[in-house]
Amino acid sequence: MIMWDEMDKCVKEWIEEAGERIKKSFLKQLTIETKSNRNDLVTDMDKETEQFFIKNINEKFPDHRILGEEGFGDSVEDTKGVLWIIDPIDGTMNFVHQQRNFAISIGIYENGVGRLGYIYDVVHNELYHAKKGEGAFMNDQKLPNLPSVALEDAVIALNALWLTTNKHMDSSKLVPLVRDVRAARSYGSAALEMAYVAAGRLDAYLTMRLAPWDFAAGKILIEEVGGVVTNLKGESLDVVRKDSVFVGKPTLHQDILQRYLT
Amino acid sequence: MIMWDEMDKCVKEWIEEAGERIKKSFLKQLTIETKSNRNDLVTDMDKETEQFFIKNINEKFPDHRILGEEGFGDSVEDTKGVLWIIDPIDGTMNFVHQQRNFAISIGIYENGVGRLGYIYDVVHNELYHAKKGEGAFMNDQKLPNLPSVALEDAVIALNALWLTTNKHMDSSKLVPLVRDVRAARSYGSAALEMAYVAAGRLDAYLTMRLAPWDFAAGKILIEEVGGVVTNLKGESLDVVRKDSVFVGKPTLHQDILQRYLT
Repeated sequence: MIMWDEMDKCVKEWIEEAGERIKKSFLKQLTIETKSNRNDLVTDMDKETEQFFIKNINEKFPDHRILGEEGFGDSVEDTKGVLWIIDPIDGTMNFVHQQRNFAISIGIYENGVGRLGYIYDVVHNELYHAKKGEGAFMNDQKLPNLPSVALEDAVIALNALWLTTNKHMDSSKLVPLVRDVRAARSYGSAALEMAYVAAGRLDAYLTMRLAPWDFAAGKILIEEVGGVVTNLKGESLDVVRKDSVFVGKPTLHQDILQRYLT
Repeated sequence: MIMWDEMDKCVKEWIEEAGERIKKSFLKQLTIETKSNRNDLVTDMDKETEQFFIKNINEKFPDHRILGEEGFGDSVEDTKGVLWIIDPIDGTMNFVHQQRNFAISIGIYENGVGRLGYIYDVVHNELYHAKKGEGAFMNDQKLPNLPSVALEDAVIALNALWLTTNKHMDSSKLVPLVRDVRAARSYGSAALEMAYVAAGRLDAYLTMRLAPWDFAAGKILIEEVGGVVTNLKGESLDVVRKDSVFVGKPTLHQDILQRYLT
């Protein structure tokens, strides 16, 4: 008997507390700013935040396994049982450079099926969450199902690097896409970019290589509002494997896949 | 006798009121039209907001001239006297698609010299402002002078379109830049991107063609914290002419100019 409601309540409390700790770290960074190796601080906050979640999960739900970006969780090769997939700070570079535009991302899967997803934009105090079958929400306000959008009216997100020669993909495929859509954006946090797709603010998001902790929560959120989540070949994602990621509104996803990616 | 303090007080009141009106418009259905091309959007809120400012300025400061994006101001060819340069909603596409990531931008010049600059991130309730000689601020907190940054540690902003073949610039110049810096971002609002440079969250921002209302306020903000504002050739901007825009931290600006743009 898995207590999803109890888990949901706990996660939200922990996320709020972790967010407060992260915000407090801004003041510490300011005081050491002139002499600091800022990457150390980030590493500390990433690790501290992941350890905070792991400690809480282990105490409260000792049977659950944890896959975390910083490696303090379990060694996970399969999706059996209840699996927590955690990115304590998604968008670390934004965290360092901007003290904003980063997120805590937590996806909870049962035998490979997404059950609960959370993306918390710490600085803007916006919690996106989804429960399988019950919808997706921003700060408890229900997000509507994603409507169709024509490609030429779409705003998409991708890293500008993918338009230059890179080892992951033939960039010449993406150049015409960027020219044909209405606009392209790049925010530097996969979790936030997926939350934006779930909230309808971006129509699609493409990226060459993500780890499970980058997309585990976003996948649940986007699927809950009728969006499509695949890799760049249109195949399903395995939540314990790295892969390319391509998410979007349903007809647009198919359109981009057929016209530009295959 | 120009009453700068009185003007500052008025602008802040008007900006707050305009922001409230814009936020209320989220609940209503927008009328969206296109201008120069199908991706150049304008809404009734752009027009209404510009008219709101113009009415207030004309009543309170009848001698001042106004240059506004939507064309309700004066026909301005020179920089004589006191000139208000207004973009009621910078980032209209974000306003339409995202209901966030847009800004009100107001720059006030006296005989071509920037005196007061305001960029208001309406949804996040963040007002960036600068008074010439007195510094730049975010929500009244003083922004520090911009430090130096090495190119390989820099986060820059630019539109991904400039990396594809375009009529404004040889994109092959920008590709190596994007590969050499730490990261590239794209937010879709020149005013906000310039505010981010002023606040140190972005190290540089480059764009091919902006109008005076896009950069008038940002120029004042960035210069007030020691940043450099030029076009892509390294030349000064004329605040009543369209031009390319290149802003950044001082040594980085020089470095990018010498290694990639000339």
